[in-house]
Amino acid sequence: MKNYFKKHPWKIIENKFTPEYNQVSESIFSIGNGRMGQRANFAETYNGDTLQGSYLAGIYYPDKTKVGWWKNGYPEYFAKVLNSVNWIGIKLKVNDHTIDLSRLEVIDFYRELDMKNGILKRRSIVKVDKKTSIQIESERFYSLQQKDLSFLHYSVKNLGQKCKVEITSFLQADVWNHDTNYDESFWQFDKSNIKDKVYWIQSTTRKTEFTVVAAQKNVVMQNGRNIKDKTYKKGEQNIGLTYKSVLKPEESIELIKHTAICSSFYYDKKNLKKTTLNRIKKSIKKGYDVLISDHSKAWNEKWKTMDVLIEGDVAAQQGIRYNIFQLHQTYTGEDSRLNIGPKGFTGEKYGGSTYWDTEAYCLPFYMGTSTQSVCKNLLKYRHNHLPKAIENAQKLGFVNGAALYPMVTMNGEECHNEWEITFEEIHRNGAIAYAIYDYIRYFGDDGYLAEYGIDVLTGISRFWAQRVNWSTDKNAYVILGVTGPNEYENNIDNNWYTNYMAKWCLIYAYDCYNLLIESNSLFPNDMIAKLNLSKKEVESWNDIASQIYFPTSRKHGIFLQQDGFLDKEQVLVADLKNEERPLNQKWSWDRILRSPYIKQADVLQGMYFFEEKFSKKSLENNFNYYEPRTVHESSLSPCVHSILAASLGKMDKAYEMYLRTSRLDLDNYNNDTEDGLHITSMAGSWLSVIKGFAGMKIQNNLLSFHPFLPEKWKSYSFKIKHQGQSIKIKVNGEEIALENESKNDKIVKIFNKRKTIAAFGSITVNHN
Amino acid sequence: MKNYFKKHPWKIIENKFTPEYNQVSESIFSIGNGRMGQRANFAETYNGDTLQGSYLAGIYYPDKTKVGWWKNGYPEYFAKVLNSVNWIGIKLKVNDHTIDLSRLEVIDFYRELDMKNGILKRRSIVKVDKKTSIQIESERFYSLQQKDLSFLHYSVKNLGQKCKVEITSFLQADVWNHDTNYDESFWQFDKSNIKDKVYWIQSTTRKTEFTVVAAQKNVVMQNGRNIKDKTYKKGEQNIGLTYKSVLKPEESIELIKHTAICSSFYYDKKNLKKTTLNRIKKSIKKGYDVLISDHSKAWNEKWKTMDVLIEGDVAAQQGIRYNIFQLHQTYTGEDSRLNIGPKGFTGEKYGGSTYWDTEAYCLPFYMGTSTQSVCKNLLKYRHNHLPKAIENAQKLGFVNGAALYPMVTMNGEECHNEWEITFEEIHRNGAIAYAIYDYIRYFGDDGYLAEYGIDVLTGISRFWAQRVNWSTDKNAYVILGVTGPNEYENNIDNNWYTNYMAKWCLIYAYDCYNLLIESNSLFPNDMIAKLNLSKKEVESWNDIASQIYFPTSRKHGIFLQQDGFLDKEQVLVADLKNEERPLNQKWSWDRILRSPYIKQADVLQGMYFFEEKFSKKSLENNFNYYEPRTVHESSLSPCVHSILAASLGKMDKAYEMYLRTSRLDLDNYNNDTEDGLHITSMAGSWLSVIKGFAGMKIQNNLLSFHPFLPEKWKSYSFKIKHQGQSIKIKVNGEEIALENESKNDKIVKIFNKRKTIAAFGSITVNHN
Repeated sequence: MKNYFKKHPWKIIENKFTPEYNQVSESIFSIGNGRMGQRANFAETYNGDTLQGSYLAGIYYPDKTKVGWWKNGYPEYFAKVLNSVNWIGIKLKVNDHTIDLSRLEVIDFYRELDMKNGILKRRSIVKVDKKTSIQIESERFYSLQQKDLSFLHYSVKNLGQKCKVEITSFLQADVWNHDTNYDESFWQFDKSNIKDKVYWIQSTTRKTEFTVVAAQKNVVMQNGRNIKDKTYKKGEQNIGLTYKSVLKPEESIELIKHTAICSSFYYDKKNLKKTTLNRIKKSIKKGYDVLISDHSKAWNEKWKTMDVLIEGDVAAQQGIRYNIFQLHQTYTGEDSRLNIGPKGFTGEKYGGSTYWDTEAYCLPFYMGTSTQSVCKNLLKYRHNHLPKAIENAQKLGFVNGAALYPMVTMNGEECHNEWEITFEEIHRNGAIAYAIYDYIRYFGDDGYLAEYGIDVLTGISRFWAQRVNWSTDKNAYVILGVTGPNEYENNIDNNWYTNYMAKWCLIYAYDCYNLLIESNSLFPNDMIAKLNLSKKEVESWNDIASQIYFPTSRKHGIFLQQDGFLDKEQVLVADLKNEERPLNQKWSWDRILRSPYIKQADVLQGMYFFEEKFSKKSLENNFNYYEPRTVHESSLSPCVHSILAASLGKMDKAYEMYLRTSRLDLDNYNNDTEDGLHITSMAGSWLSVIKGFAGMKIQNNLLSFHPFLPEKWKSYSFKIKHQGQSIKIKVNGEEIALENESKNDKIVKIFNKRKTIAAFGSITVNHN
Repeated sequence: MKNYFKKHPWKIIENKFTPEYNQVSESIFSIGNGRMGQRANFAETYNGDTLQGSYLAGIYYPDKTKVGWWKNGYPEYFAKVLNSVNWIGIKLKVNDHTIDLSRLEVIDFYRELDMKNGILKRRSIVKVDKKTSIQIESERFYSLQQKDLSFLHYSVKNLGQKCKVEITSFLQADVWNHDTNYDESFWQFDKSNIKDKVYWIQSTTRKTEFTVVAAQKNVVMQNGRNIKDKTYKKGEQNIGLTYKSVLKPEESIELIKHTAICSSFYYDKKNLKKTTLNRIKKSIKKGYDVLISDHSKAWNEKWKTMDVLIEGDVAAQQGIRYNIFQLHQTYTGEDSRLNIGPKGFTGEKYGGSTYWDTEAYCLPFYMGTSTQSVCKNLLKYRHNHLPKAIENAQKLGFVNGAALYPMVTMNGEECHNEWEITFEEIHRNGAIAYAIYDYIRYFGDDGYLAEYGIDVLTGISRFWAQRVNWSTDKNAYVILGVTGPNEYENNIDNNWYTNYMAKWCLIYAYDCYNLLIESNSLFPNDMIAKLNLSKKEVESWNDIASQIYFPTSRKHGIFLQQDGFLDKEQVLVADLKNEERPLNQKWSWDRILRSPYIKQADVLQGMYFFEEKFSKKSLENNFNYYEPRTVHESSLSPCVHSILAASLGKMDKAYEMYLRTSRLDLDNYNNDTEDGLHITSMAGSWLSVIKGFAGMKIQNNLLSFHPFLPEKWKSYSFKIKHQGQSIKIKVNGEEIALENESKNDKIVKIFNKRKTIAAFGSITVNHN
């Protein structure tokens, strides 16, 4: 449903209750603080369609692999993101009727996600019986300042005649995942108790043994007076307090849930209960008003650096802010053990926490908007997983420290179990090397290479060196049996992108090794010894790289996506009937595979990464060939095409592709938002504006811009952090204004011309 | 364990009890009569490792598909062969000890499968307690004459001091499949009862609603006297009779179970109980001795035509008879609704009943040894499934009556769910057309074409015509995204075998159409109308066929298995280490895929089908290229290589490959006999002797031979049925003797020379 949510520059608004769309809304209104997050499930009883979901960073369950036909090399489990303790639990009874929006008449309904302040609000008016209507108002948030705390402010107002009200506020630990392979329970309940009006529940994940304690205390007021409570227990896994009262007409009762959730991922298991109860004590002491104000301030502070302001196009404005907001709710970068799950804290689907999306799409967003340490944490995550990547390669028969990073992972172990992806979508290794290159180039952090970079590059290079084989027929090294970024081709030979990434990795590792050898001090000898690296081995990488085969078509002046691509039927996306799309829902898999249709940027993905290495003519030829064949059925695709289109001056195409990416979930483009949000592709929206419309690149260590203004927009502006400095760019119809917010001069390139912006100074430049 | 079973020309013998090998023995000693069959589970209680299995032809359960990742086009279910009512049930107690070979000391053990008479016998001596030992003798069979009847003759002899004996003989309906996707029960119990010493159980399969009634009556004697019985019931699903007695030293008690099992697959559901009880009544009246004698006679009669006699090599003799015996136990050919399941009645694995094995491997066996009507039934099976094959193609996006026969099926619907096989191993369509050609050529049954052949050929041709696409690059039709017979390559382009079969199908259908049009009377006009066939369409088939692309290598003088095959690493099977084999257990799937190793004959499969179309030189080049790259990890592979090696005069290779195929299960070559026998590949053993060693072919409507005698053998002889005549061939070191057993002269070709054998006459020919 396009245009279901109201457009607003800072808010997502839903102003009617649509039960059949409830699961989409649950996804859209998700909130989180990087450590915890949840779908917008109703606090009170709801018997309609719903996907219950409250998630905790780092907590997962290794769900036994489910396949139709086992293939050697498959992993034993898939790490599932866990639906965990339900802390928003409310049972509301009015005149003995249980309030349930799926059962009662909803007279009025309004929900908003206030992105500026990070708060989810709802107001519902419900008809309870002939004489009784009530208004529920709720407000909730995960504190961005106190990351173990979350709050629900819930009030019930009597709009009818005098009525009895009974509110139970509770914690619930007997929760299930929707996505389980064998209907197993992922949690083991430990204990629960209530003392001094504070109740708590402890449970532990099966197998992985993460322990979580959730504690809660309510502040309940009616006319400024506290209400008497009574312990509520339903088994041991549902615990809370019940408040009974009578409401006169227009009278309200208000309940504030203070919740602390602490896990053994962060805290000592032994003192977990104590730690959690302490958090509650402090929260109550500080008080709700202070805590919500601190939380808002923290968000406001974030927006100062992250915001992209678009004037003249409220749909685009709402879209980009929504994407930035959700990204920041998912990953805040303090902890190198965490990463950016494909659904963040908004759903279970896909499981795992890390795909190549992180390196290829998300890292540049965090580089531009966050701190170096956040980005370093993203890289160290992979560095820490190197031993597992080596094990993973060993399982597939590779030796001598070759590393294959997993397609999907939580802790470094491969979780994916579909041979054509798990074993063959090996280009992911390239993105991990590219991220090292990208990070070092962006921050100028040469020290990273010796400390964390070279061993990862070595493992990856060893993988490529073993994965190629010599073709006597082609007199070159070939890479057989792969799946490229375009997953609508499986088990193909010589995927241009994969071959290119392999070649680039080998040369980059060779160059890095030599750089480190030359600058002796940076490269400790014990690292060489540890890696058992010889000059001969490193030279063999360079040698292989120089003889890797690339499929090309002279006739079309393009790189071929893979061997045999020109054998495909010569039809274009324009030849498809509307009812055939999306192909992945309408066509059988084999038909998709043998068709020429491309799911996502593949050759163009490679040209995007290394645009400077290709001529404009070559880029244009390839874009003109592949774009008409690309169906963009991956959320990761349109942003790359948008950026390249912008670079080629194809402004309409760039804008079209931007629209496709930035409102993907808000407009439920792929008809799957109910499963959760497409978190990682949200970084692509930011990239489309910054790298696409503003044409930002790093060129010879300098920030470079080549901006244009989409026709429909009045202006746009954003800030870029680069090497400790912050530059604000505003592009309007007349000119481009650049502001240096730092205390040192900043040299930038704009339209390929070097410009110096004085400390705290600004310049303006005319459009090209 | 090679050489575990004793070698004997007519028997399979096991002369010790090896609990850890029990499941293999259960498979090996399986018995059946084409309508029912079972694994050699012990009749009495057995708590060791066992796979319980009694199966009924045509009775299946549609088990909901289980996959890791759903692909559009997957079927909803996999048709599972069902473990059904256990009719051999015996509980034997001696001095209150339950007799269980897994718990008691087994003093002596002997088991034999008498293939000549189709009877399974066992003798076990068990120590019950210090003073008591007993000898159990059992004999059982599924009547080949009375196909609803089966018998167990079970006797217990006291070898120690006087003892109490209690025998319960029962039917058990609460049985489970080992292989269920979701641990569902496949059977719904209906009712059971006992009256006049006859007890019966009725149950019905869930979803498919096949009803089965099993009834049983026992004849129990001790010293010529009947024993008193008592009703035994354990719930409603275990029903029988208990006999208690006392045995003096050396005294015996004997029990004969008469069992009738009737299913709604064969009989009217309403009268099923009555039908079954009638069978029992007649069986008792006829008596065990007459019935076992009739059964033996029926087997002896079969052997007269089916036997292959090998002198001088008892292992080879036992092997070929075992294969023939098991094939005939599985499929007797009376019913065109049945087919030859990959495990027959010996296990659950793979499910379904029909793979392309039937057409490519089994049909020639039945053509040579059985009647035309049996073979016609095999073909009609596919003819009857044509509407489902059209539906199956529609699911994948094909139109206009294109038919894709399923990879695996029970009732015509596709059951397989692995995209690279289900959607891509489309060469199976070719084998189904080839079988029509093979059958017509063998029997000269031209009438089959108009009645049953042309619509199948039309559906298949329409599939190929839509499945090719024009490659502007190759200026030819290509077939992209297929899996050939060599399943160690997936989703490849232009598999030579597939392209060849496609081309051949299109031309054959074109020729058949023209033949029918010319001989107007044979081809009813309403068939043309029904098929909506136009001359133009048929000509387009010929046109496409003439422009299909074939990958070849001039350098090697070979057909290339697929595009890009020469890019593979140039290593041979000889380069593999022993510990790396079988590859499918030792290597990861991706490694297998990109390796040059071939699972089973692929290009050579095509050359085997159409040997007359290729020069000896070409066959030799291809054999010399592909054989050293073939690991034969499919049971269907070595026979094809054996036959071609024989044709090329590579006698040692032919014999090596024959050995590999003929004792596959007896020597548990692939270490998987415990799951059941490799029924369909057993036809390959017969083919290796008849088409390989004896060089039998059909040439211009004539039986043709080109025999050689393997070095180790003294002689071999067999009979071939051809167009209503039976020819006996005996090959020894000196000469080849041919005997015409029919009342008309028979012209045959031997070593390419025409010879006439007079009616009931014989000729001898010297070796070439």
